[in-house]
Amino acid sequence: MIALAPTDTVRGRATVWIEALHDELTALFTTLDAGGTFVEDRWTREGGGGGVTRVLTDGTTFERGGINRSVVGGALPPDAARRLGGRVPVGGDCEFFATGVSLVVHPRSPMVPTLHLNVRYFEVTDADGAPLDSWFGGGTDLTPFYPHEADVRHFHRALRATCDRHHPSLYPRFKPWCDRYFTNVHRGGEARGVGGIFFDHVRPGADESRLDVDGLFAFAGAVARSPVTTYAPIVDRRRDEPYGDRERRFQLERRGRYVEFNLVHDRGTSFGLQTNGRAESILMSLPPLAAWRYDARYEPGTFESALEAMLTPREWAAGE
Amino acid sequence: MIALAPTDTVRGRATVWIEALHDELTALFTTLDAGGTFVEDRWTREGGGGGVTRVLTDGTTFERGGINRSVVGGALPPDAARRLGGRVPVGGDCEFFATGVSLVVHPRSPMVPTLHLNVRYFEVTDADGAPLDSWFGGGTDLTPFYPHEADVRHFHRALRATCDRHHPSLYPRFKPWCDRYFTNVHRGGEARGVGGIFFDHVRPGADESRLDVDGLFAFAGAVARSPVTTYAPIVDRRRDEPYGDRERRFQLERRGRYVEFNLVHDRGTSFGLQTNGRAESILMSLPPLAAWRYDARYEPGTFESALEAMLTPREWAAGE
Repeated sequence: MIALAPTDTVRGRATVWIEALHDELTALFTTLDAGGTFVEDRWTREGGGGGVTRVLTDGTTFERGGINRSVVGGALPPDAARRLGGRVPVGGDCEFFATGVSLVVHPRSPMVPTLHLNVRYFEVTDADGAPLDSWFGGGTDLTPFYPHEADVRHFHRALRATCDRHHPSLYPRFKPWCDRYFTNVHRGGEARGVGGIFFDHVRPGADESRLDVDGLFAFAGAVARSPVTTYAPIVDRRRDEPYGDRERRFQLERRGRYVEFNLVHDRGTSFGLQTNGRAESILMSLPPLAAWRYDARYEPGTFESALEAMLTPREWAAGE
Repeated sequence: MIALAPTDTVRGRATVWIEALHDELTALFTTLDAGGTFVEDRWTREGGGGGVTRVLTDGTTFERGGINRSVVGGALPPDAARRLGGRVPVGGDCEFFATGVSLVVHPRSPMVPTLHLNVRYFEVTDADGAPLDSWFGGGTDLTPFYPHEADVRHFHRALRATCDRHHPSLYPRFKPWCDRYFTNVHRGGEARGVGGIFFDHVRPGADESRLDVDGLFAFAGAVARSPVTTYAPIVDRRRDEPYGDRERRFQLERRGRYVEFNLVHDRGTSFGLQTNGRAESILMSLPPLAAWRYDARYEPGTFESALEAMLTPREWAAGE
């Protein structure tokens, strides 16, 4: 592991914070699964750092769930630096430090949507350790397989409420960012799901919210804890709803699009694979089973076409 | 479609040649499936060109088979030009022309390996149409799910015999190239399958074989027709071999690695998606169903570990 930073530094504080969020999320999703347990793997990364991956396989509610935390750092490869988008000197040697927690759960039932969540703290320093840049990033988004519009409205409204407690500018800025980010460009701009929020390079005191380090820890922590209000009620409401082979089949095909996004477009996945990350931990976001069907098209009036229509970004939190 | 080039130009000749190979492969694999039929889609590409995609869904032998031909061209995006690896001027406007046929079949039975095949002809010109570079590329490779070593030896020996008829340098150069190319770098360098041959940027008269345009048409055509001797005998031998859930399960997990390679590393897939290609035709290479299991490991002595051991490149054609 990376030498532990003292907790009076921001990176030290971030490390402890991520550990606590990881444990809270594990407890929440163990309860939510109502049967399965997470198995833990601790790993170290060649080049610096390591992490703790917790995976639930063949659970009661979740066909697979993964919750990963990591603290990584070391030399920042030029390619990765270029894509990172922070204030990073061109061509200069620099180092990075990153700690974060990420979660993806793939429910068994197509009536229950998939949830993704991530929060992270990132620092870039020069080769002598002098700070060049630091920021928070993260987000959470929903991928339904059945067109329960009420669930999507619930998710977005609860998420907006969470954000609004920290600053009224957050949801209105980070909701469209999420819509732009989780897009399968190669599929004509089709969204991965119905969105949520996404943010990156949010620097203490530097954005519209003017949240300082304490404020950003509080906000990003609230995002990490948001499934309690955004997602758990949906799981409870839908987990016992009946479904058939057709719904399962469609879920597997939508999961195929999820795989496409994660492997072709997701910056976190690319960054991890490029920086010698642990493939099993990075790719735990992939579903346990996914399908591809050539040129699938659905008649108007079917639940499949209704679901596809929901993928066009909309103001789901409006009108409450 | 792109304006048809006269058949006395190389690109015109290549276009007709690819059409004929496409039809031959369709006929061969229809026979090999012994039950299913390919459904054809003709499409045009915004920006120039188009193609014909033929897909067999839920066949008798093949769970999915796709055979695609295309003739595409137009402005070469700078990003695509950089990755293309031809003699392309840095920063200068240029155009490309490409025609090729590609095939992927995903058999139902895990006893039958997956086959991939592609041949293509590529030209780069400046904005006025003056030639800058032209080359042939292609290859064929095998991805087994059950450790039938005899089948792998058969595939490589038949492929070497095909290559040797055109020049003795071809198989020895293109076999290791295939091993290097079809590698899941993010999986510690694990190969996608047991290889075959891969070649790119083979310019008329310019490589060790000194094959001229006619010679390269003949060689690449022979590669396209090679399944008759390399693959058909394996299908005939294995299609009725019994298997169980465990073999099917392992096949689905290996198919997951196939998806990872195609979406993360394959240059043809990236080039197609970057150049506004038709996603359904590019991604028909993906399996109909694939699985991911967290940190799968297999005991020594199991068929799964025997299969994994076969993924280390070996001189399969040696010793005949």
